[in-house]
Amino acid sequence: MTEFITDNFLLQSDEAIRLYHEYAKSQPIIDYHCHLPASEVAENRQFQNLTQIWLAGDHYKWRAMRACGVDEKFITGDASDWEKFSKWAVVTPNTLRNPLYHWTHLELKRPFGISNCLLSADTAGNIWDIANAKLQLPEFTARGIMRQMGVELVCTTDDPADSLEFHKTIAEDDSFDIKVLPTFRPDKAIQFACPIPLGGTINEQSIKNYNTYLDHLGTVSGLAIRTLDDLFAVLKLRHDFFHECGCRLSDHGFELFNYCNYESDEGLDSRFRKLRNGKLIDETDAIRLQSAVLHYIAVLNNDRDWTMQLHIGVVRNNNTRMFNRIGVDAGFDSIVDGNFAKPLSRFFDQLDRGNNLPKTIVYNLNPSSNEMLASMIGNFQGGGVAGKMQFGSGWWFLDQKKGMESQLDTLSNLGLLSKFVGMLTDSRSFLSYTRHEYFRRILCNMLGKDMKQGLIPNNYDLIGKMIENICYNNAKNYFGFFANTK
Amino acid sequence: MTEFITDNFLLQSDEAIRLYHEYAKSQPIIDYHCHLPASEVAENRQFQNLTQIWLAGDHYKWRAMRACGVDEKFITGDASDWEKFSKWAVVTPNTLRNPLYHWTHLELKRPFGISNCLLSADTAGNIWDIANAKLQLPEFTARGIMRQMGVELVCTTDDPADSLEFHKTIAEDDSFDIKVLPTFRPDKAIQFACPIPLGGTINEQSIKNYNTYLDHLGTVSGLAIRTLDDLFAVLKLRHDFFHECGCRLSDHGFELFNYCNYESDEGLDSRFRKLRNGKLIDETDAIRLQSAVLHYIAVLNNDRDWTMQLHIGVVRNNNTRMFNRIGVDAGFDSIVDGNFAKPLSRFFDQLDRGNNLPKTIVYNLNPSSNEMLASMIGNFQGGGVAGKMQFGSGWWFLDQKKGMESQLDTLSNLGLLSKFVGMLTDSRSFLSYTRHEYFRRILCNMLGKDMKQGLIPNNYDLIGKMIENICYNNAKNYFGFFANTK
Amino acid sequence: MTEFITDNFLLQSDEAIRLYHEYAKSQPIIDYHCHLPASEVAENRQFQNLTQIWLAGDHYKWRAMRACGVDEKFITGDASDWEKFSKWAVVTPNTLRNPLYHWTHLELKRPFGISNCLLSADTAGNIWDIANAKLQLPEFTARGIMRQMGVELVCTTDDPADSLEFHKTIAEDDSFDIKVLPTFRPDKAIQFACPIPLGGTINEQSIKNYNTYLDHLGTVSGLAIRTLDDLFAVLKLRHDFFHECGCRLSDHGFELFNYCNYESDEGLDSRFRKLRNGKLIDETDAIRLQSAVLHYIAVLNNDRDWTMQLHIGVVRNNNTRMFNRIGVDAGFDSIVDGNFAKPLSRFFDQLDRGNNLPKTIVYNLNPSSNEMLASMIGNFQGGGVAGKMQFGSGWWFLDQKKGMESQLDTLSNLGLLSKFVGMLTDSRSFLSYTRHEYFRRILCNMLGKDMKQGLIPNNYDLIGKMIENICYNNAKNYFGFFANTK
Repeated sequence: MTEFITDNFLLQSDEAIRLYHEYAKSQPIIDYHCHLPASEVAENRQFQNLTQIWLAGDHYKWRAMRACGVDEKFITGDASDWEKFSKWAVVTPNTLRNPLYHWTHLELKRPFGISNCLLSADTAGNIWDIANAKLQLPEFTARGIMRQMGVELVCTTDDPADSLEFHKTIAEDDSFDIKVLPTFRPDKAIQFACPIPLGGTINEQSIKNYNTYLDHLGTVSGLAIRTLDDLFAVLKLRHDFFHECGCRLSDHGFELFNYCNYESDEGLDSRFRKLRNGKLIDETDAIRLQSAVLHYIAVLNNDRDWTMQLHIGVVRNNNTRMFNRIGVDAGFDSIVDGNFAKPLSRFFDQLDRGNNLPKTIVYNLNPSSNEMLASMIGNFQGGGVAGKMQFGSGWWFLDQKKGMESQLDTLSNLGLLSKFVGMLTDSRSFLSYTRHEYFRRILCNMLGKDMKQGLIPNNYDLIGKMIENICYNNAKNYFGFFANTK
Repeated sequence: MTEFITDNFLLQSDEAIRLYHEYAKSQPIIDYHCHLPASEVAENRQFQNLTQIWLAGDHYKWRAMRACGVDEKFITGDASDWEKFSKWAVVTPNTLRNPLYHWTHLELKRPFGISNCLLSADTAGNIWDIANAKLQLPEFTARGIMRQMGVELVCTTDDPADSLEFHKTIAEDDSFDIKVLPTFRPDKAIQFACPIPLGGTINEQSIKNYNTYLDHLGTVSGLAIRTLDDLFAVLKLRHDFFHECGCRLSDHGFELFNYCNYESDEGLDSRFRKLRNGKLIDETDAIRLQSAVLHYIAVLNNDRDWTMQLHIGVVRNNNTRMFNRIGVDAGFDSIVDGNFAKPLSRFFDQLDRGNNLPKTIVYNLNPSSNEMLASMIGNFQGGGVAGKMQFGSGWWFLDQKKGMESQLDTLSNLGLLSKFVGMLTDSRSFLSYTRHEYFRRILCNMLGKDMKQGLIPNNYDLIGKMIENICYNNAKNYFGFFANTK
Repeated sequence: MTEFITDNFLLQSDEAIRLYHEYAKSQPIIDYHCHLPASEVAENRQFQNLTQIWLAGDHYKWRAMRACGVDEKFITGDASDWEKFSKWAVVTPNTLRNPLYHWTHLELKRPFGISNCLLSADTAGNIWDIANAKLQLPEFTARGIMRQMGVELVCTTDDPADSLEFHKTIAEDDSFDIKVLPTFRPDKAIQFACPIPLGGTINEQSIKNYNTYLDHLGTVSGLAIRTLDDLFAVLKLRHDFFHECGCRLSDHGFELFNYCNYESDEGLDSRFRKLRNGKLIDETDAIRLQSAVLHYIAVLNNDRDWTMQLHIGVVRNNNTRMFNRIGVDAGFDSIVDGNFAKPLSRFFDQLDRGNNLPKTIVYNLNPSSNEMLASMIGNFQGGGVAGKMQFGSGWWFLDQKKGMESQLDTLSNLGLLSKFVGMLTDSRSFLSYTRHEYFRRILCNMLGKDMKQGLIPNNYDLIGKMIENICYNNAKNYFGFFANTK
């Protein structure tokens, strides 16, 4: 058969081909948002087989398998690794036109070098053997793969209570020069009133969970959290600690973004103490409290020149039966609908009025918000930082060709593509770095088509430089990872 | 002039041409959702002229005529059939880029064989004569047309109180082997609190209408409906009866989907009795009651392995003046905006928790919900049924090239296109079967382009099989029309 | 280098090239909605330099400059005109894929004749010199540019209290035959309860502003406004006066469209008097009052056969810090999200029931409402006016290639493109007339592609006529600017 993932995969014009190969392909990877476990980099994990590195934890594949009628036993159950892999192989041809089909074959090609066949029931055994053999080589450990793929830096996603011990181990290891930095993700310290389960109500269980978490966070910090000021103090301690460990971003997840301009801290503190005593507070107070904590963290970010990431629009754990069986992050989350232009505006505006607005990236999950969002952030550009407010790359369900093209087009039309900080994997897997390749091919295809059609000048210096910036330089300059600390 | 609807209409690549002609074209038609009157199949209606079969009841055309400034007399008024047709002929060239322009010429070509001219004022007389002459032939009766077009099965849309006498007549007629099955559409038994008029409030008139309907339904069933349990019992009786008549689907229409998790039947029953006594109930109770009845029917569906169809997002009868003059389904309905991710999730989740979730197809009218919906159903895939939860084909205003491509792309990216049950006409006309041809051409064009561009493998066996499945096999396997009846 | 804006810019097929050059290019321009100051036409303003005519007041460019990190001093501050222009020149290459990049080079080509170079830091000085020299010529005054660009008529946007003295001056000047007509924009007389600042609440300041405005409007009209009937009477006086001055359109801006069916004027009047006494009214009453005033103006429009324009979906002045520094229309507005199908339906329906629905154009800013809106207006077509209800051309942030294509596609699929009244600049600048060229090229490209692909007949008479209509004839016939005044 003809090779599927060719050198010119996704590149539909001579212009696109030249742009990709001359400008995009060789740029290093700054993966500024992912969910890799730092422990596996620290210990340089060797993966036993393809199922361990490729299927375990991959809820994208799990959803596809369920949609094909595969029994849960072969997805998250007690079937053997080979059985799980062979079921996935049967499902793969059924994912045609889904990004899984492209990702699968991109990842088999790189790093595994398997490009002469398509994954299916027929080829499963052969691919299993080849890939598993490679996984025993030093180039295929966690670190080996990162090196092979040209990774320069990754940012993991971490709870404020985390000790960051693995990040420290990696930083202190002179034999490994890829930076692995933490990201400050304080959702549990903010979303006391909108716990994960569907509906997002405050109830006794959610308050209990919240208090358990704050007790833990206080213990880690050596400062018991009784008042709102205590919480702020602890968050600042942890923020400082993360900064020392190289952290330069915070990250925040929302079902639907909400925010109110709170006026005084006084009333808030009494509500917070009530919560700490295990009592219910009403929804309005909850939103005020959440707003206050979120605002406080944003101010910390701005003080330290960090970037704030907002992920907006996912309704989680829709399937109670499966939640009770498997838990979170198992493929039962989806896109929510709803409005958030005005709360988001209020949030940015309150920060901006106090000169406290940090660099910000907003990721939205429902593409029907694309234009709203891309135009909203334009109201808060400025302060001498190029591209200060960023419309984040296609996230989760939108991390596919059409979703990325839509994000790129919207950003182009309503903002400045040239200042875009580009791609991130958002992945839990060491095999996802070809997502950067995928993005770069899509970007070059889009710009190459524009050149061919005369929509942009036929000037490789101009367009090539822009591509290099989006693939690498913009992120490098924007986040300040490589600047002298403090 | 060059022929407009050529053999390769809509097929923009050699790959698309081959896919359509070798794999798609000759598949039989399973039209699993339409609004044909079974009576006209039973009596094998012969149509007097083109206006009778083509314009009467076609509110798509009516809207276009109104938008062109045509007087209502020539649309739904007392003008002669020729006058109406000739006005439509004048309007036709003004519908360029509207699906009506394609549909019109597809339907003139098949079944009428008129493909050498475009409908306009100039050609109206000639086309009128040719088509009317053909309509007198046996191949152009209701049954004749269905046979010509390769129809294997259709599902009509029927009220639970319907006697299904015409369906029985057709089933018992050995001379006609196309299946004509009923669909259970119990909107009138559910939407007591959201009557059709704009605003959807409960008022004395809506309750009166509801009680009149329930009285009738009780009479038909031989069981007076006094309590909610009575209603459930009657619905089960009618569900059983429909099942015996070959029904395998229910269908439900919603302005905007709403649902609440109701806890107990006790309080509901007293509210229901209140309604039955002609008293108003408040909106919260109304939604609880509706939720309970909808849930009950869904359970019946699952028990019988039926498929549940949800049509979401139409605001009806916006134009009061014309509603008073012409009534419903006259071209005054349109797309509503609003959110329904969370109620839909609650509905599916409550069913799933009780192992009662039936196979389900959701059709949405506002394309800004496409991604939300395609991702939401993915939370409830499983149970060993491939493609159990379906994102329905482009519906009503979205039943056009761009709308269908958008549905296909969204389904592809967020779900599994390969498991899609494909096209349906949703039509009131015997001339709409070329909608399947239209869909198939669009599907093949899309996949052909992907092949040409290397986005999917250049493998005709693989892609051709997928096309055959979407056009025919998936629907055949999914609905169970041809399985032995219990 | 290759010329960027060639004769065939945006025209991707031979069909498109022929359609544009034979049918679209030479049509006169009817710019039925813009924000030009009539005073500058009356006095035939000569612009001192490129910054004065091109950057002053252009908040699109300001946003791009801020997003590039340019200091506000060089945007709206006290830097010299040359400094501002040279900063813009540096920013221009960073706007690649933003409509600014196309607009910039279209405008340099026409009217300035600069087409052999791209604006950048390198070319800034040369372009500055050439353009400034031209600006001293008579062909480059306000009137000179309008003549060069083939403008036949423009409609400005004016407050009901405006004296229209400049419009009169222009009308009386026999040496200038381009019509400059006013548009009736009574936002300040309607939106007493939703003042501009974010949040749109009624407060003491907003009521004070409203009363100040009504006092002024009463003085101008010679009729003190004490009651709601007084307001109606004054609005009618001003409406009459505008009509005498050639006005044929009203225009209305909304954050999110709201409307309620108000039943009686009695209660409204007492609320209105309360407002006039500087007292707060609640939000429900405010919406009722606004609905009543909006409805009244719509009736006036219909009585005079005017066209009503609704601009829906902008959240203004999001950035309080910059609002306090620079004020309104400075680049801090953006797209809002939210629902308005049902209020819009109520508004049209109440008008239609009374036979008071005027010709109407609705512009939406959030493209996720495109399909809702294009289908909604279809419910109110009729009354013998072709294209009575219009889905307006891509507005503001959507006034770009993709936004316009989306509007054209949606209108095509859900309504009748052939009856579209086409493009308008909505601009504050005399250099924006190439927006019509831009639109026409996009339209011809779209239809040319359709012809090439066989989606519409390969018939230049048919398609060419349709293009001529959309570019010119439809607007000419629809608005009645050239009919004898009553």
